[in-house]
Amino acid sequence: MPSNIVLLTDFGLNDNYVGVMKGVILAIQPHAHIVDLSHSIKPHDVLEGALTLKTAYTYFPKYSIFVCVVDPGVGSKRKPILVATKDYLFLAPDNGVLTPIIDQERTYKIFEIKNDRYLIKPVSHTFHGRDIFSPVAAYLSKGLLPSRFGPRLKSIKRLELPIPVVNRKNRKIVGQVMHIDHFGNLITNIEERDLKGFSDRFHLNIKNSVIRGLCHSYVEVKRGSVLSIIGSAGYLEISVNQGSAAKKLNVKKGERVEISSEIG
Amino acid sequence: MPSNIVLLTDFGLNDNYVGVMKGVILAIQPHAHIVDLSHSIKPHDVLEGALTLKTAYTYFPKYSIFVCVVDPGVGSKRKPILVATKDYLFLAPDNGVLTPIIDQERTYKIFEIKNDRYLIKPVSHTFHGRDIFSPVAAYLSKGLLPSRFGPRLKSIKRLELPIPVVNRKNRKIVGQVMHIDHFGNLITNIEERDLKGFSDRFHLNIKNSVIRGLCHSYVEVKRGSVLSIIGSAGYLEISVNQGSAAKKLNVKKGERVEISSEIG
Amino acid sequence: MPSNIVLLTDFGLNDNYVGVMKGVILAIQPHAHIVDLSHSIKPHDVLEGALTLKTAYTYFPKYSIFVCVVDPGVGSKRKPILVATKDYLFLAPDNGVLTPIIDQERTYKIFEIKNDRYLIKPVSHTFHGRDIFSPVAAYLSKGLLPSRFGPRLKSIKRLELPIPVVNRKNRKIVGQVMHIDHFGNLITNIEERDLKGFSDRFHLNIKNSVIRGLCHSYVEVKRGSVLSIIGSAGYLEISVNQGSAAKKLNVKKGERVEISSEIG
Repeated sequence: MPSNIVLLTDFGLNDNYVGVMKGVILAIQPHAHIVDLSHSIKPHDVLEGALTLKTAYTYFPKYSIFVCVVDPGVGSKRKPILVATKDYLFLAPDNGVLTPIIDQERTYKIFEIKNDRYLIKPVSHTFHGRDIFSPVAAYLSKGLLPSRFGPRLKSIKRLELPIPVVNRKNRKIVGQVMHIDHFGNLITNIEERDLKGFSDRFHLNIKNSVIRGLCHSYVEVKRGSVLSIIGSAGYLEISVNQGSAAKKLNVKKGERVEISSEIG
Repeated sequence: MPSNIVLLTDFGLNDNYVGVMKGVILAIQPHAHIVDLSHSIKPHDVLEGALTLKTAYTYFPKYSIFVCVVDPGVGSKRKPILVATKDYLFLAPDNGVLTPIIDQERTYKIFEIKNDRYLIKPVSHTFHGRDIFSPVAAYLSKGLLPSRFGPRLKSIKRLELPIPVVNRKNRKIVGQVMHIDHFGNLITNIEERDLKGFSDRFHLNIKNSVIRGLCHSYVEVKRGSVLSIIGSAGYLEISVNQGSAAKKLNVKKGERVEISSEIG
Repeated sequence: MPSNIVLLTDFGLNDNYVGVMKGVILAIQPHAHIVDLSHSIKPHDVLEGALTLKTAYTYFPKYSIFVCVVDPGVGSKRKPILVATKDYLFLAPDNGVLTPIIDQERTYKIFEIKNDRYLIKPVSHTFHGRDIFSPVAAYLSKGLLPSRFGPRLKSIKRLELPIPVVNRKNRKIVGQVMHIDHFGNLITNIEERDLKGFSDRFHLNIKNSVIRGLCHSYVEVKRGSVLSIIGSAGYLEISVNQGSAAKKLNVKKGERVEISSEIG
């Protein structure tokens, strides 16, 4: 059974770019099982790519090969890299998109993708998803070892992921809205563990609104009302039961979120 | 050959939710063949989910497993259910999204999904698509019997699907626009059989427009002109040849459609 | 190994149309490997469909079956056709969408799809993607010969693809923006070969802007600056480093592009 090849890009679905990547993969490895993780990363938004990968990759089967092409520096000197962890392989430009992997995985090996024997030639200056990352993914899926594609690297670029400021003494957390999903849920960078020691009956301030206490399901409030809840990826989310919190609170990505459990 | 797993959700494609569901399925059943029916159901619109399923499922191969996650009540007491018909399996929250199945299929068995041995734990309160429906679909695809997942239920929730008022005496039908498709076609809830006994030269009133008679293809009218036609799912549609009826008539979902064949 | 079936349509992903096509294919050929090339062709825009196919098909494995349904004339007398080249099979309405194939391939055979034994009956007047093209693709993927589906045709409809006017004497090229991609790159109809004999330090005029010279990668200019570059499909593109040229220059499809290398 060949490995799954999981695609994560900022290419959108309006052009033939994603389709062409699949064509390249299948021409090399006809048995490839290709899965779309997302192609809706905001163009050039490496951080959004990293966060999307972070909360998803562990759900995929062992030996999945992730192709992560959010690549504002395509054609520059930034290196195409391959990171091998115990369970997975990751292909990406060396721009920080793999930060969650090196932060979360204990052991990994990094390789530079350099051996042009396995690339589509001439390699374009604008579409390494097609010319570098897709063919390498296909050959990996055929069983070639990572070392075949280039030399080991000692380190790769790390992004600073936005983390909240947790002040346990003053019982205050200051975080931010990190992502707004399709439903208008406001996903913050505050994790469940950050809330340890805080009362569930905290006050959450966002823009001009105060939300009191943590719910365990949407239906604990009336339809159309705002609530806070630990979402499926372990982050604190601000939601509206059967509605859009982004619309109701008129909030954008990056909005400040403040939690305090002084009261009571 | 494992069964196809067909996904129908309101998750959109901007997040990693659909990708994660696929990861969960493939981690359990590496041979799963996953097909996207649609992820563009309007958030929380159970009726739209039901109608999308209604006109699609019979085209899929026998033994397909449909995973229908339009789930405004996620985390509440609404049950996750499994409906087995002669040819298919359907997984969904018990909120009426499977109404067309129990209306159209003669025999079926309903099960509550309860056996937590087959779920992703801890089951989140906000993403049963990932934690309940995907793994159960994967195990079904491996051949596990529906009865493994929980006890039989006698009945499930039924939605009232909007049906037109047909008055054969006065030769009048009052229906509505049920769906507007990507092309701007206005798909009504009036079925071909409702028109039996009516002259093909009926008058159709919608908003401020009158359409005279039924066409059999778009090209019977000039490019840019309005027509009515029986669409591919058997419903009366109002279309514009090579254009958008929704734009031209400035009509939204729910708009009243009246047919009369008094004239002639 | 059955062939890949590659889908290219203007159906969008908001309805169940693409999902239903996949259901039809899988009901006939359970082992089909279906790949989405694009479903985002502008409704009824046959030329856009042709150009999307042109720059993509050669990346797919041999024996891939392309199903190209951009079909404003569905239900009219336009024929459904099958074009067999040395390496690929193409199914489409006879409206010019296959122009790049007959222009680029030396030898090919054209068949009319006529044998209704292989169609979904009754064939609707509005959805030949479901009733004609999908089942024929599935049967071809099972190994049926093209001649099984209908008689040979001598010729098919050709579209005039927009080509630039190249005046080597006056060192001038007048072309146009042919496509705007997801990133806001302006893809012109000027090919790399058209620029032979022109200095790389040409002047490019578009709307009210002048771009001087050809870059080889985005990063040769500052972030947010405009550049011109040969894109991944071999066409001259106007881009903004990490930004959208379409927005920055406020340009739409069809905008005139003029190149002159008089200066220097």
